[in-house]
Amino acid sequence: MTQLTDIDAALAWLLVRATPLAETEPCALLRARGRILAAPVVATLDVPPHDNSAMDGYAVRSSECTDVALPVSQRIPAGSQPAPLEPGTVARIFTGAPVPAGCDAVVMQEETLQEEDGRVRFTRPVRAGQNIRCAGEDIAAGAVILPAGSPLSASDLGLAASIGQATVEVVRPLRVAVFFTGDELVEPGQALGAAQIYNSNRYWLVPALEALGCTVCDLGIVPDTLEATRAALRQAAGSCDVIMTCGGVSVGEEDHVRSAVEAEGRLDLWKLAIKPGKPFACGSVGSADFIGLPGNPVSGFVTFATLVRPFLLRRAGLAEDRLHPRVMRLPVAFDWLRPDPKRTEYLRVRIVTGETGQRLEKFPHQGSGVLASCAWAHGLARVAPGQVLAAGDLIEFMPFPEGI
Amino acid sequence: MTQLTDIDAALAWLLVRATPLAETEPCALLRARGRILAAPVVATLDVPPHDNSAMDGYAVRSSECTDVALPVSQRIPAGSQPAPLEPGTVARIFTGAPVPAGCDAVVMQEETLQEEDGRVRFTRPVRAGQNIRCAGEDIAAGAVILPAGSPLSASDLGLAASIGQATVEVVRPLRVAVFFTGDELVEPGQALGAAQIYNSNRYWLVPALEALGCTVCDLGIVPDTLEATRAALRQAAGSCDVIMTCGGVSVGEEDHVRSAVEAEGRLDLWKLAIKPGKPFACGSVGSADFIGLPGNPVSGFVTFATLVRPFLLRRAGLAEDRLHPRVMRLPVAFDWLRPDPKRTEYLRVRIVTGETGQRLEKFPHQGSGVLASCAWAHGLARVAPGQVLAAGDLIEFMPFPEGI
Repeated sequence: MTQLTDIDAALAWLLVRATPLAETEPCALLRARGRILAAPVVATLDVPPHDNSAMDGYAVRSSECTDVALPVSQRIPAGSQPAPLEPGTVARIFTGAPVPAGCDAVVMQEETLQEEDGRVRFTRPVRAGQNIRCAGEDIAAGAVILPAGSPLSASDLGLAASIGQATVEVVRPLRVAVFFTGDELVEPGQALGAAQIYNSNRYWLVPALEALGCTVCDLGIVPDTLEATRAALRQAAGSCDVIMTCGGVSVGEEDHVRSAVEAEGRLDLWKLAIKPGKPFACGSVGSADFIGLPGNPVSGFVTFATLVRPFLLRRAGLAEDRLHPRVMRLPVAFDWLRPDPKRTEYLRVRIVTGETGQRLEKFPHQGSGVLASCAWAHGLARVAPGQVLAAGDLIEFMPFPEGI
Repeated sequence: MTQLTDIDAALAWLLVRATPLAETEPCALLRARGRILAAPVVATLDVPPHDNSAMDGYAVRSSECTDVALPVSQRIPAGSQPAPLEPGTVARIFTGAPVPAGCDAVVMQEETLQEEDGRVRFTRPVRAGQNIRCAGEDIAAGAVILPAGSPLSASDLGLAASIGQATVEVVRPLRVAVFFTGDELVEPGQALGAAQIYNSNRYWLVPALEALGCTVCDLGIVPDTLEATRAALRQAAGSCDVIMTCGGVSVGEEDHVRSAVEAEGRLDLWKLAIKPGKPFACGSVGSADFIGLPGNPVSGFVTFATLVRPFLLRRAGLAEDRLHPRVMRLPVAFDWLRPDPKRTEYLRVRIVTGETGQRLEKFPHQGSGVLASCAWAHGLARVAPGQVLAAGDLIEFMPFPEGI
């Protein structure tokens, strides 16, 4: 395509083609944080499994709790199995312990007085059912407690443990190969020759992919020749689900990536109607998807955050309603008087909390090629083509996901 | 303390006592995501290091760009070192390539026409300085590009790479020991006896600590005796910075954790004025901090999210302005007519986007002891003691950090 492609249209096009991984594997709970659940977790038992005490106190028959002090007939610590409650008595009971048969209420310790002979008197009226947690009250056997397609959080794992699951079935990690081309690139830590620049794209892209849960196959810098680029593509396609590069897909004739992908598979080149970031390539090599980000780090980063991240998450098995960051509408703290007439602009902005609430401030140098604006920002403000902003106007704000 | 302790006062008290770790270590960039920067990263060079082209096109002297077509005297790919620009000529140049001496502008390819003899004609006026990125424009040597005390994101690492840093100095991970007591506890995957419950606390606490970047020493379930608890405390104090348990710190007499900590170190017991979650213990054993969460998983989780997480992050070296999640004010989609008169309530809520914007819905069963509400929720809505809410009222919303 030579025309500018709308970002929303590009995203919809990509998501239609993002086939979720079908391979799954069992995973121990304590290793499953961030993994994507492949099948719903269904409760196989009631929680709590038995009626139990919500308090430290006394298990009683509520009808017997009059002004008369009652003797303590048994003691029920958590983990024990109580005898039925003898009529005319109470049982000392502790939080989580099963209530004895015959008991219909628990009185918290703070609402009792103990006589010298050990008998217990009640300082407040006792209501049937009070301080008893009923079997199945929290989770009923058969209920879906975690839906498929969700990334597992710490609380999800605690919830799965509470019904006794030791493992969960998760989607295997998405394997993403990355390589970088350009004879001007030097790895950090090495001396910089004249006309050379450090390969910064590798150092944001690999961690960003790992933050999404991908297994990264990092091929490093590939020599800037057609043959080396084709060989890297073939190697990556043999073992990975997705191949990503930065740069090499613009109209310049020094770029071998485009012709290498065309020789080994197929390629679509887009000019995205976004700023920063315009050249974008996608296609396939063998059974692997190919994604070519713009070589400018800021353009690449913004294109990754807006377009590629949802595609990768969908490929990795995330449910459709989980793909997009939660967008907010917040007022801007600046004027934006010369919008791009044709392209959606993603300004790198920060949330600043002041007396009048939260506002978005922008990084001063939006045109920079280095990631300072992205490292500084809390997320992206989306300005529509031609949209003029005055301080106080509301705008769509997309926070960066944690770690990215 | 036997009185209810205000949550904000408790947090302030804890943060004053949270001594940041002083030990640091070098870390390779590709392993540093999520690590906490121990010293600012200062640029040692200009970025870009030389004036270079922002476009694929032609390097020119702007004063020479008249109606006359000019010959191409050299070709400057990225990574090469150009000769000075011959007067009366232009140089073919590519994005990122250094501009030749004498050149003061780059004309993008799309604004040129090539004659049959190879000479180049310009279709638009040429402005001095256009499409040239100046040395030091993005980062000036000597500038602080990343502040100390920040957790390293993918874009931070890309930024550090762009000035050639191969490693960053980070704070060593905080070591946290955890153990769980209670004879009623059974590990998931094992059969549940009568009066037993699964140990769900381990399965949210360990991943939540790992999500914060802590190294976890997981001692599992410790037998519910004073001697075993004291032995676990001594073992943990010998190797860890912080010791955490769930349960065992309420007023019930079956709890050995309190007396074990008092025997091995010192302990403060608080009744926090929060709901869910009331009993909270903190103290020390040897040089390690001790934190005792309530045993009810929801109480423990909420206490962790509101009180313990900022404490641990501060201990781990995070800067003070980074400790707290960004709070938002959002309207509720429900009425809350019977608030607790004395305690701050943390409702588990979800952001729902409708036609009128974003609103907070609450989990129906706020009183549950299992983590279903926390797994379902996007975060916590904070209701002040005695605060009555009607649908549409604004409330303070604290999103859960990712992975927790």
